[in-house]
Amino acid sequence: MRAFVYRGPGSKAVEDRPKPEIQAPGDAIVRMVKTTICGTDLHILKGDVATCAPGRILGHEGVGVIDSVGPGVTNFRPGDRVLISCISSCGTCENCRRGMYSHCTTGGWILGNRIDGTQAEYVRTPHADTSLYPIPDGADEEALVMLSDILPTGFECGVLNGKLAPGSTVAIVGAGPIGLAALLTAQFYSPAQIIMIDLDDNRLAVAKQFGATHVVNSRGGGVAEDVRVLTGGRGVDTAIEAVGVPATFLLCQDIVGAGGTIANVGVHGQKVDLHLERLWSENITITTRLVDTVTTPMLLKTVQSGKIDPARLVTHRFPFDRILDAYATFGRAADTKALKVIIAM
Amino acid sequence: MRAFVYRGPGSKAVEDRPKPEIQAPGDAIVRMVKTTICGTDLHILKGDVATCAPGRILGHEGVGVIDSVGPGVTNFRPGDRVLISCISSCGTCENCRRGMYSHCTTGGWILGNRIDGTQAEYVRTPHADTSLYPIPDGADEEALVMLSDILPTGFECGVLNGKLAPGSTVAIVGAGPIGLAALLTAQFYSPAQIIMIDLDDNRLAVAKQFGATHVVNSRGGGVAEDVRVLTGGRGVDTAIEAVGVPATFLLCQDIVGAGGTIANVGVHGQKVDLHLERLWSENITITTRLVDTVTTPMLLKTVQSGKIDPARLVTHRFPFDRILDAYATFGRAADTKALKVIIAM
Repeated sequence: MRAFVYRGPGSKAVEDRPKPEIQAPGDAIVRMVKTTICGTDLHILKGDVATCAPGRILGHEGVGVIDSVGPGVTNFRPGDRVLISCISSCGTCENCRRGMYSHCTTGGWILGNRIDGTQAEYVRTPHADTSLYPIPDGADEEALVMLSDILPTGFECGVLNGKLAPGSTVAIVGAGPIGLAALLTAQFYSPAQIIMIDLDDNRLAVAKQFGATHVVNSRGGGVAEDVRVLTGGRGVDTAIEAVGVPATFLLCQDIVGAGGTIANVGVHGQKVDLHLERLWSENITITTRLVDTVTTPMLLKTVQSGKIDPARLVTHRFPFDRILDAYATFGRAADTKALKVIIAM
Repeated sequence: MRAFVYRGPGSKAVEDRPKPEIQAPGDAIVRMVKTTICGTDLHILKGDVATCAPGRILGHEGVGVIDSVGPGVTNFRPGDRVLISCISSCGTCENCRRGMYSHCTTGGWILGNRIDGTQAEYVRTPHADTSLYPIPDGADEEALVMLSDILPTGFECGVLNGKLAPGSTVAIVGAGPIGLAALLTAQFYSPAQIIMIDLDDNRLAVAKQFGATHVVNSRGGGVAEDVRVLTGGRGVDTAIEAVGVPATFLLCQDIVGAGGTIANVGVHGQKVDLHLERLWSENITITTRLVDTVTTPMLLKTVQSGKIDPARLVTHRFPFDRILDAYATFGRAADTKALKVIIAM
């Protein structure tokens, strides 16, 4: 089969690989139908993700059709259309049983990281019963690809951890796909203000279309002051960090109000300054989270019922034989205005 | 009247001052009966607290008897015995109405900081109806002095913010009065392990008497490894920071397990490193809080019913005319083994 492979820092290729086989009773082999590229894949290609060894087939998102299942799989059979979660979970270990599937002792984020992923004609998915979801009839496959990772990530790590509530004020720092996923799902809770902050006017314009009440371009500085003015001097109830660099985490500390929450979603590569000399008395909460995908079934219902339409995040489409073009387009998002790219088999 | 006064960094004195007078309808004048010294008072004396101007009478803890009340006070009258909260709150502003009394727009921590405090024969207490508590008949006054600040601080900022639960594991970093207050109140929730960490063997011995299941002296290093071993490799569910320096906050980051909480109680004078490059995916929560004293009535009941005996924190007693000796004893706690000192009028 054809597969997109990480060859080491700065090196990638489409290669011929053997079709994966069942290795454990709970495995399924899925024939991929649609996949996408995540910002994390770009980090891997730069060599930033130590757990991902050269030779790995990338990708942790997508929809497909069950090709075969191991003898322990009871919920799926060949021919079933499935949504693949970015998080594999056994459902039985201590962490899974407390709902923290992201830290499953034999799973977590392994697809396209510790084991081969979804940017290929076929993928082996461990713990299939608890890591795949049946696709309802008539569902929009492109919308569902957004449910593999970015929708639950924006929702669980940003919106749920950020304790959004009706009438509250929220700032989302970073209007990339994850920040926009947080923006879409934030509206479940009817906040009074959603202030979107980014350097890119195009992304801010998209954010406005997606429901942001205010947008602030952070290029010129003065953002914290702008947010203070917008919130009557109080700062926001929730600041969602959806970038993953020290400057944006610092901005969140500057705009959160007393009693507020900073919900970190960004993947950070270095330590950050935490200004406890100022924040120790501000009754704030800071949260981190690797998405558990506990809300995937619920999000699926919100898509099916039309509450949100994550297919709006899809800006580009490529056939698999042009996946290198897809990476180029996604990697130069500021120029190409790419949000999510769909790769169809 | 006699009063203990901050004269500027490094300078303090007992002075004669005029007896305070009612200034606003909600004020009460309280004749002090017993007060104490807080670690924060030592910070003020060093010049670390910018909001506290030279000339200020210190003290934000104590019990006393109502001397007079303004025309707006309805809950108290002269002769009533009262517990003074370290937090003054109007009960009507936006922050008070959401229960965040610490950020009352005309109150908060003002006693012995922005206005004259309780280390004097009399004190003026603003917002008396919502900042004083009646003392039940037969109550131990020394125990109640602990309820002005340290018990609610340890409980609200440490135990409640730390989300303690039956069977959970908790580490308390710092076995000073606040850490011990957290230790006493942590036991309301029946955690499986309470690991007390400090540099001082005497304080650790006290912690053991107070209910710590394990004590670790951090002088030699290797604490994080010790805690990992004690918790079966997982780290603690809750790490309570009760010191307020970068090293102890760092230790909390090293010992908290996936899905755990770091509840900051310490007063920090400088920024700290937050290792988001490691913690972004660990599903942790970090909280800060200036005590709101929302739990003071509840804590009063736990003392009255014998669930906890905070008078055990009292190690030394002085008459007011020896308050300078009280400060000297409290300030050299490592030598004197002082925890809380009671100053009686």
